[in-house]
Amino acid sequence: MVIKEIRNRRSTRSYKKIMPADNLIIELIKAAQFAPSSHHNSSWEFIIVTDNKTKQKFYDLLGQSYLLEVPVIIIPLIDTTQSTGPVQDISVASENIFIQAASLGLGTVWKNVTDLEIIEKIKSLLKIPKKFMLINMIPVGYPKTVRRPHKDNDFDPKKIHKEVF
Amino acid sequence: MVIKEIRNRRSTRSYKKIMPADNLIIELIKAAQFAPSSHHNSSWEFIIVTDNKTKQKFYDLLGQSYLLEVPVIIIPLIDTTQSTGPVQDISVASENIFIQAASLGLGTVWKNVTDLEIIEKIKSLLKIPKKFMLINMIPVGYPKTVRRPHKDNDFDPKKIHKEVF
Repeated sequence: MVIKEIRNRRSTRSYKKIMPADNLIIELIKAAQFAPSSHHNSSWEFIIVTDNKTKQKFYDLLGQSYLLEVPVIIIPLIDTTQSTGPVQDISVASENIFIQAASLGLGTVWKNVTDLEIIEKIKSLLKIPKKFMLINMIPVGYPKTVRRPHKDNDFDPKKIHKEVF
Repeated sequence: MVIKEIRNRRSTRSYKKIMPADNLIIELIKAAQFAPSSHHNSSWEFIIVTDNKTKQKFYDLLGQSYLLEVPVIIIPLIDTTQSTGPVQDISVASENIFIQAASLGLGTVWKNVTDLEIIEKIKSLLKIPKKFMLINMIPVGYPKTVRRPHKDNDFDPKKIHKEVF
């Protein structure tokens, strides 16, 4: 049952210095590519960053010490000339990465990248063509401490409305 | 392994006239509430629509005959005074609904709602307070025909870039 992995997915901000096997990272990006996309454009691209010099530059731009310690950072992109819902498309693909990672014992977190100047610097650093949108980074690694899974207490039935709000 | 449900998740546009049990719909919204949200704001709300008169109005506004035949429509919302990434927050919660539905044998589809005038009409119809964002509807029901799961052929390894684009 997928609910186990959905419960186990917790944002991870502290990582062990153990490199996950290449094939596990491929499995994450495979899961991302099985996500829906607007009008089935499937125009994602994914950059896998492991280079410490690049991580240092991300840290200089974005802060967050986990960007230095995490072994892998996945950067999802979408072609804005193909996608009619680029933020949605990156988001649902990211969630598949998060859940698949939980299933493989890996931790992840949505690192938001919203400052337009910083986005341009990162796109230039990673040689990303202009037409691709970048809104986040996904650090991936083994969590230093495993957080408790989501419990039913984290679910609020009052947020459910029947027929009207 | 969650990859099975991720592979089984296919957009469904034709539904049987069988009402899913209430507790299954609750399970979908539970999964949604275990999704990450910007700064952990968790300010989603979810409307469950089963009323045929409401579905008829949705159809009049949006077309798509599956809006008439599907037994349940879930409408996720987010409080724009709480969320700093409302489109992202609705999107990742929606993906959890899609995958959890696949796990329960239910079909879903992201029905985009982008026209601002139509959004206002739907918000008025469903008595949704002004501060909530609505970007989609999620029809939920048993698929008339089950589509093949995603296969490795649907995964394009050329979309993976090492270190730079």
